[in-house]
Amino acid sequence: MKSQNAISPTRSEDFPEWFQQIVRAADLAENSEVRGCMVIKPWGYALWERMRWVLDGMFKATGHRNAYFPLFIPLSHLAREAAHVEGFAKECAVVTHHRLEMRDGKLVPVGELTEPLVVRPTSETIIGAAYARWVKSWRDLPVLLNQWANVVRWEMRPRLFLRTAEFLWQEGHTAHETRAEAEEETLRMLRVYERFAREYLALPVCVGEKSAGERFPGAERTYCIEAMVQDRKAIQAGTSHFLGQNFSKASDIKFQSRDGGIEHAWTTSWGVSTRLIGTMLMAHGDDDGIILPPRVASAHVVILPITPKEESRAAVLAAATDLASRLRDQRFDGLPLEVELDTRDVGGGVKNWEWIKKGIPLRVEIGPRDLEQGTVAVSRRDQPHKTKSFLTVEEAVARLPEILGDIQANLLARAEAFQNEHTRKIDSQEEFKAFFTPKNPEKPEIHGGFALTHWDGSAAVEEQVKADLKVTIRCIPFEEAPEPGICPFSGNPSPQRVIWAKSY
Amino acid sequence: MKSQNAISPTRSEDFPEWFQQIVRAADLAENSEVRGCMVIKPWGYALWERMRWVLDGMFKATGHRNAYFPLFIPLSHLAREAAHVEGFAKECAVVTHHRLEMRDGKLVPVGELTEPLVVRPTSETIIGAAYARWVKSWRDLPVLLNQWANVVRWEMRPRLFLRTAEFLWQEGHTAHETRAEAEEETLRMLRVYERFAREYLALPVCVGEKSAGERFPGAERTYCIEAMVQDRKAIQAGTSHFLGQNFSKASDIKFQSRDGGIEHAWTTSWGVSTRLIGTMLMAHGDDDGIILPPRVASAHVVILPITPKEESRAAVLAAATDLASRLRDQRFDGLPLEVELDTRDVGGGVKNWEWIKKGIPLRVEIGPRDLEQGTVAVSRRDQPHKTKSFLTVEEAVARLPEILGDIQANLLARAEAFQNEHTRKIDSQEEFKAFFTPKNPEKPEIHGGFALTHWDGSAAVEEQVKADLKVTIRCIPFEEAPEPGICPFSGNPSPQRVIWAKSY
Repeated sequence: MKSQNAISPTRSEDFPEWFQQIVRAADLAENSEVRGCMVIKPWGYALWERMRWVLDGMFKATGHRNAYFPLFIPLSHLAREAAHVEGFAKECAVVTHHRLEMRDGKLVPVGELTEPLVVRPTSETIIGAAYARWVKSWRDLPVLLNQWANVVRWEMRPRLFLRTAEFLWQEGHTAHETRAEAEEETLRMLRVYERFAREYLALPVCVGEKSAGERFPGAERTYCIEAMVQDRKAIQAGTSHFLGQNFSKASDIKFQSRDGGIEHAWTTSWGVSTRLIGTMLMAHGDDDGIILPPRVASAHVVILPITPKEESRAAVLAAATDLASRLRDQRFDGLPLEVELDTRDVGGGVKNWEWIKKGIPLRVEIGPRDLEQGTVAVSRRDQPHKTKSFLTVEEAVARLPEILGDIQANLLARAEAFQNEHTRKIDSQEEFKAFFTPKNPEKPEIHGGFALTHWDGSAAVEEQVKADLKVTIRCIPFEEAPEPGICPFSGNPSPQRVIWAKSY
Repeated sequence: MKSQNAISPTRSEDFPEWFQQIVRAADLAENSEVRGCMVIKPWGYALWERMRWVLDGMFKATGHRNAYFPLFIPLSHLAREAAHVEGFAKECAVVTHHRLEMRDGKLVPVGELTEPLVVRPTSETIIGAAYARWVKSWRDLPVLLNQWANVVRWEMRPRLFLRTAEFLWQEGHTAHETRAEAEEETLRMLRVYERFAREYLALPVCVGEKSAGERFPGAERTYCIEAMVQDRKAIQAGTSHFLGQNFSKASDIKFQSRDGGIEHAWTTSWGVSTRLIGTMLMAHGDDDGIILPPRVASAHVVILPITPKEESRAAVLAAATDLASRLRDQRFDGLPLEVELDTRDVGGGVKNWEWIKKGIPLRVEIGPRDLEQGTVAVSRRDQPHKTKSFLTVEEAVARLPEILGDIQANLLARAEAFQNEHTRKIDSQEEFKAFFTPKNPEKPEIHGGFALTHWDGSAAVEEQVKADLKVTIRCIPFEEAPEPGICPFSGNPSPQRVIWAKSY
C-alpha cells in the first residue's frame, strides 16, 4: 500500500523535499524566473500580513514608530564600517546604470552611475546617515524607529521562505544616550521576539547570545532566538544586535551630552523576516501538509457543505451559510473569527484535502444527514485527518473559539516535547560525534538535535567542529547560574554549556 | 511687519518653495544622500499607513487579495511588450553585478550577471509571467491580486512625495476571461480611487480617460483621477489601465475557454502611490503648514497643558491626562480617537506652533484658568490659528468627534469651491492662451486652472499646445451627454470638451 498521506515524500523519507512539497501543496509561494526571488502567493502573504500586524503592535507598545528609508545605499556608505562591508560584500546586488537603450537590436544598460548603489542587504548605514542629521543633543535621544521593507542578499542556494535573495522583513534601528540603555533595548526586543515566537507561532525558541564568529558584521553583541524544526536542525528565527558605538562612529552620530561634551550615540538593530514563516511550517507541518497555529492563521475555520443529492442541496447550503455567519460573530484572540465557506462544485474529498494541505486549523463538514441530526462534523488540523467530533450546531458556534485556543496550546506543547526529546547534555567528543552522525551514511536520515555541550570560548574549537561535523554554536543560552565545566574538544575550562546544532 | 504665518515663503510668494517648507516644518520627509530617494519620517509614514489600511480594506471588499512579486525583472521580460519597455527605458535602475570586492584599495562591483536585472518600475511583466503559469482554464479566472511595494523610476528632477526615484505604492493586477469583465474591473477600481480621494483625502478629483499620448506604456486605455492643487496645477493622483490583451500576449497568459478554444486573458492594472500624500498636502495646506483631513490623520487631537505656575502644574497635568483618556474612549470614523498629550517642558507657544505645522486637526489647550472655569480652548486646524472655542470638558468629550467630521466636510467643500472657481469653459485660442500665461513674465505667479476646451482628438493639437504653453490634456471627463463643438486650435469638429491644465 502506498502512503495514505497527502504529501510525498514524507518527512522521514526526505525532509528537504517534503518542505518544498508542503509549500507547494498549500499554495503559499513559488520560485520566480529571477534566481532566488520568490513569488509569495495570497495564502502565504496573508500569513505575513497577520504576523506583521501582531509584531507591529508589539513594537508600538514598546515605544517604536515606523518610518521608511531608501532602498539604495551608496557604495561609500556601506564601506564606512569595515566589518560590516566585509560581511555583506559577497551577497550585494549592485545598481550601476540608470537607463536602457536599444543598441544593435539589443537592449543594454546605459547611463553609468558615478557611484554604484547597493540594494540594501540591511540598513544600518543608510539609517545611520539619517540619524547623524537628526541627533544633535541628548534631548534628541532615544530614536526608536522600525521599518517594514524588502532587502536583498544574493543567495547561491535559495530555499523558499528560508533563504531567498529578496525577502521581506522588519528592521528596528535605535540610538541611545548610554550603553546601558542600548543594551536594555537590545534585550527588550529579543524578548519581544521570543514572546511572539512562543505565543503566536507556537515555537519554543532558545534564547541567548551568538558566539563572536556568528555575530552580525559590525555588532558588538548579537542575540538570537533559535528554533528546532522537525529534522532536528536549528533555524535562527530572529536577531537583536547591540552595535555599541561602531556604527555611530562610522556614520558620525554625535550628540551634545548632559555635561556639555560631545559623545557618539549607542545603537541597536533587530529584525525578523519571512523566514519566520518557513520556520513555523517546518516545526509544525505533518505528512499531510502545513499546520497553521490559529493565532497567525489567515483563516480559522472552513465550512465544507456536503451536497451529494440535488434535493437536499439548497437546505445544506443554507445551513452552511447560516453557520458561517454565526461563527463570524464569534471572536478568537480578540478579533472576529475568520471563516471560509467553500461552496465550489467539486468533490467533498477533494475540497477536504485541499484545506488539510492549506493547514487551516478547523474543518467543519455539514451534509444532509447532519442536517437531520442537527450536528456538524469538526476536524482539527492538529489531529489525524480522519478524526472527527460531532457537535450540535449550538455547540460548534459556542466552542470553536475555545478549540482554536486548544490547538494553539497543543502545537506549542508538541513542539516543546519534540525539542526536549532531542536536546541532550553531551560531555564527550565521541558522544557528540555520534549524536551528529547519521547511522546510514548512504541515506542522511534525520538525526542530531541540540547538544548542550561545554565550550572553552575559542574560535579554534568552533571552526574545528564546524569543519568536522557541520555543527555550529547556535547560542550561548541565558542562564541564571551558569555551571562551569570542561570543553570536551580542547580539555580547557568552560564557563557554561552552549547549544550546538546543525542549522539552516 | 513680517508675515505672522509659520511658513515662509507663503503660497502666493513661491508655491514650490512653500511646499518644500511645509513638508519640512511638519517633519514628514526629507531628501536622502541617494539622489531622488526620500526618507519618510514617522509623521509622514503614519499617513501612508493609514491610507494603506483604508485602501486595503476597499480592495478586499471588491474581491482582491494581496500577494508579493519579485523586486527584479530580467531585462528580457521587460522587453516583451514593445511600447512598455520604450516607455520605461529612460528611467530604469539596472542591477548588473552581485558582489563587491576590494581591488587596489577600492571597493568595486564584481560578479557580472549573465542577464541584467531591472529594479521594477511597475510589475506588469513579472506578474504576467506568474499569471501565465497559473492560468490554464477559464475556471482559473479572474485572478484579482494587489501588491503593496516599492518601485523605482529614475528621476532627474525629484520632488518630495510627488516625484521620487523610489516610491511606495500599490499595484493591482487582474486577469479576466472577457474584454467586458476586464473593462468593468478597470472602471470599478477607478471609482474606488475616486471615492477614496473624495471621502478620505477631501479631494474633489476629476475622473476620466487619458488621451492616447498620455496612456500608460502598453495600455489600451488609461483612466485617471486628477486633482487640482492650490497653484491651480493638476496632479494625476491615481490611474487604472485596461491593458487589453497586450500584456497577456507578451507574457503568454492563455486559457482554455468555455467552448474549448485557447484564448489570451484580458488584463488590467491600477495603482496609487505616496504621491497621494503630496497631492493632499498641496491641496489643503495653508501659510501655517500642512492641514490633515481627519479621516487620514495619524492623530486627531493634541492636548496642550499650559503650566505657567508651579503650584497649579500638577492639577493641570492631571486634568489633561484625564481628558486624554476620556477622549480615547470616543470614536471617530468607527475607530478610537487618536489623542496626543504633549507634556514636554517647552513653551506653550512653541508647542502650539509645532502642532499647527504638523497639521493635526484639533488642538485643545488646558491651563489653570480653564481648570477654574471647567473649560478647555479648542482650535480647529481649518480655521485661522488664533480662533478658539471655549467648551466645557463635557462638551469637548462629547463633541470633538462631530467637529472632526465637520473639518473633513469643510476641507472638501473648500477644495471644491477652489476647483470650481478655477475651472472655466474656454472656446477661443486667445482666451486659452491668456488663461495659461502669467501676467508678469518676470514672476510666474499662480495662474491658470482647468480649461474645459474642445479638442479634435488629434495628437498634433496636443503636441502643439504642450510645446507652446506646457499645457496638456489631463483627462477626457466622463460625461453622460457629451456636447460636440469646435476645436479652437484646429477648427475641426470635437466630440466633447476635455480638461486642459498645467501639471506636476
